[in-house]
Amino acid sequence: MNKHQDTIVALATAPGIGAIGIIRISGTNAFPIVNGLFPNKDLNIQKTHTIHYGHFLKNNQILDEVVVSLFKGPQSYTKEDVIEISCHGSPYIIQKVIETLIDSGARLAKPGEFTQRAFLNGRFDLAQAEAVADLIASENETAHQAAINQMRGGFSAEIKKLREELIHFASMIELELDFGEEDVEFANRKELKSLIKEIQEVIQGLIESFRLGNVIKKGIPTVIAGKPNSGKSTLLNALLNEEKAIVSDVPGTTRDLIEDEIILDGIPFRFIDTAGIRATEDQVEAIGVARTHIKMQEASVLLYLIDLKNDSLSTYKEQLYSLEKQKVPFIIVANKLDEADEFLKTHIQADDRAVLISAASKTNLEILKSKLIRVLDITEFKNSNTIVTNVRHYEGLIQAKDAIQEVLKGIANNITHDFLAADIRQSLHALGEITGEITNDDLLKNIFSKFCIGK
Amino acid sequence: MNKHQDTIVALATAPGIGAIGIIRISGTNAFPIVNGLFPNKDLNIQKTHTIHYGHFLKNNQILDEVVVSLFKGPQSYTKEDVIEISCHGSPYIIQKVIETLIDSGARLAKPGEFTQRAFLNGRFDLAQAEAVADLIASENETAHQAAINQMRGGFSAEIKKLREELIHFASMIELELDFGEEDVEFANRKELKSLIKEIQEVIQGLIESFRLGNVIKKGIPTVIAGKPNSGKSTLLNALLNEEKAIVSDVPGTTRDLIEDEIILDGIPFRFIDTAGIRATEDQVEAIGVARTHIKMQEASVLLYLIDLKNDSLSTYKEQLYSLEKQKVPFIIVANKLDEADEFLKTHIQADDRAVLISAASKTNLEILKSKLIRVLDITEFKNSNTIVTNVRHYEGLIQAKDAIQEVLKGIANNITHDFLAADIRQSLHALGEITGEITNDDLLKNIFSKFCIGK
Repeated sequence: MNKHQDTIVALATAPGIGAIGIIRISGTNAFPIVNGLFPNKDLNIQKTHTIHYGHFLKNNQILDEVVVSLFKGPQSYTKEDVIEISCHGSPYIIQKVIETLIDSGARLAKPGEFTQRAFLNGRFDLAQAEAVADLIASENETAHQAAINQMRGGFSAEIKKLREELIHFASMIELELDFGEEDVEFANRKELKSLIKEIQEVIQGLIESFRLGNVIKKGIPTVIAGKPNSGKSTLLNALLNEEKAIVSDVPGTTRDLIEDEIILDGIPFRFIDTAGIRATEDQVEAIGVARTHIKMQEASVLLYLIDLKNDSLSTYKEQLYSLEKQKVPFIIVANKLDEADEFLKTHIQADDRAVLISAASKTNLEILKSKLIRVLDITEFKNSNTIVTNVRHYEGLIQAKDAIQEVLKGIANNITHDFLAADIRQSLHALGEITGEITNDDLLKNIFSKFCIGK
Repeated sequence: MNKHQDTIVALATAPGIGAIGIIRISGTNAFPIVNGLFPNKDLNIQKTHTIHYGHFLKNNQILDEVVVSLFKGPQSYTKEDVIEISCHGSPYIIQKVIETLIDSGARLAKPGEFTQRAFLNGRFDLAQAEAVADLIASENETAHQAAINQMRGGFSAEIKKLREELIHFASMIELELDFGEEDVEFANRKELKSLIKEIQEVIQGLIESFRLGNVIKKGIPTVIAGKPNSGKSTLLNALLNEEKAIVSDVPGTTRDLIEDEIILDGIPFRFIDTAGIRATEDQVEAIGVARTHIKMQEASVLLYLIDLKNDSLSTYKEQLYSLEKQKVPFIIVANKLDEADEFLKTHIQADDRAVLISAASKTNLEILKSKLIRVLDITEFKNSNTIVTNVRHYEGLIQAKDAIQEVLKGIANNITHDFLAADIRQSLHALGEITGEITNDDLLKNIFSKFCIGK
């Protein structure tokens, strides 16, 4: 069962002062080590999943009053023997408890080492293990839901199933190789082709989900643009409900890119206010400049402000023309509704890409928010299991996609068994690396080193 | 048993990201509330001190995979029913778990409320409860040991015992009152006097321990003084083993008071480097100026640097004369031993208040350190149970001392029963407030509001 004979220890709770701190120890010697420092009871003869109050000794003196929780392998996180020591949450005590355990034969765990052991002992696959880190880092409902889904199996179960079917074909084709020149076909090429296409479809869907998966983690970049003094900072403040940007009547007040996040319907939007550019009247063209330009490129959606009070119909049309030329989805935000020019207002109202608001008096902001959610068409993803949020998985999927493409080409071109077998092996490898059925030490080291210590 | 019917909840571990976070819920409804959110098992029928793995639901959706630890009252910290929920250590999840528990009928605990309930339910006395906060805040071995001792009973047990004896005499004297004019003496005045003297002695010892108790918490203030360019910053750096102060050959380089702490033999010393004062040759007299003066006043010990290379015997004697006039214990630190004037060196060597060192080459620093521990005569306190570290206890002891003094005076002056009884009641009150046998809501509120939330 336990491939790892040494016993590891780390603080499992956040560092700093709290009411309690939990120190986790896992491995063959977890019980003997803690037992020697806990004079009140013989922990060896206690049942798993029980809790015991007593003293924790350092150099035969009472260091703290503690509560120990016992988890006997395989009924533990790592599937090894695990004890969690709950001590008073003083950094001094926590440090001394860990020191004492190390002096008694444990060693300090590396980042992610508990989860790595859980993975190596078969508790979950690699994508699930990675989801644990994502879960801990998740800061909003959607990111949290994506991580929970992935941790509970998620897309890796699907890939695993498809990979197993592909293995079946691979072995058939390997069998054909044994018959050499005889030109037999154990693997039905039509069925193979249909499986490959199914795999291709699943992979393509997952790859497409990554764009969303990525923004779920970081927030959907939402750029607020528009001519100077059209109300960009006022809108940002109104959305954030706090005075984040300095608002003044002087055009060009905003010098820096200001970023902040709000959660709409569980999805994080990262709002980006852009410095007003005064060199040209045409804001959309002027966006070609410097950082604003870069942010525009990265944006998933653009809120473009029109000034209902000061813009004429012709300047509006000029801006709209430029706006339509660029590729990012946009919403026309017609601001200053309270002081609107009636002619322009009537014209813009007819455009269903537009929302008429007053940023200053916070009119129609709810309408703007719901339009923002709709324009990105992301709600369907929200409750889906198949969101890829991990760059490593994304890269693995891209590799798998290329390999699968080669298999399809091979079938179409009627290539020889051995080349086809090699292509399929390549695909199996790429898919296996995602679920962790194929791993190597460097890969594992790379993955788990990104975890926090104690997980 | 449970005087407090509502159920409280708080994060018990440090805030921030960790592998796990522990949410603690205590009160009559702890089990029904958690049971309704934990679909895997009926927690009501489980034994106390057992651990259960399962899902935690929010709005009937899985929020997280958790481990719950059950503590049935009175076998818990608060002596109420307590459940600790161990979830993934993401601030998002922790917040949602707490929100869900509140939505289900718990309320957010006030700072120290768990410990306050433990106190009110008789788990420990007030001084012990206060030690919990000290224990969590303790940053070094001595402070930690003082808090552990106090938490395990410490001096409050002793006070409690003396107070009970005093209560016995009080009731005897109250009895005398019933006999009015008859001039009977149930309370043996000699025995009373001897008890009072014993109490006085204990209280005096505790009051004296407070000076040490206070420095244990904050570090013993140790001022490094001496003429400009005598090597004060170099010594500080050598002691701290890091380049904390800017060292240069230009006299007057150090402009600010620089503070840092080192632990010697488990006792924290807070070293204070003083800005060189150049207005006068006589450093000790010059210390009368500004901040340096204030720091000198606060100092528990003074390290006074003599320059073995540049000082003459007469300037040394002048400095020594000024040094002997001030009241703080001091060590003469004769620096620049490598380049010492042999005549001056021989002279200073004979003085057992002096240590000859070279701060630059770190010569004899260990000798200086051990002299520093000895000069304060604090090692005897170190392993004592009777260190008062809490300002409230200190003030309570001062009040008790004054009241006890009145009782003694009363006995000496043969005052009437009723006045004597009133004086004893006053003493009982002061002593009772320390152990918490006498409390009021304001006192408790004041004490527990200083705790962290979750304790």
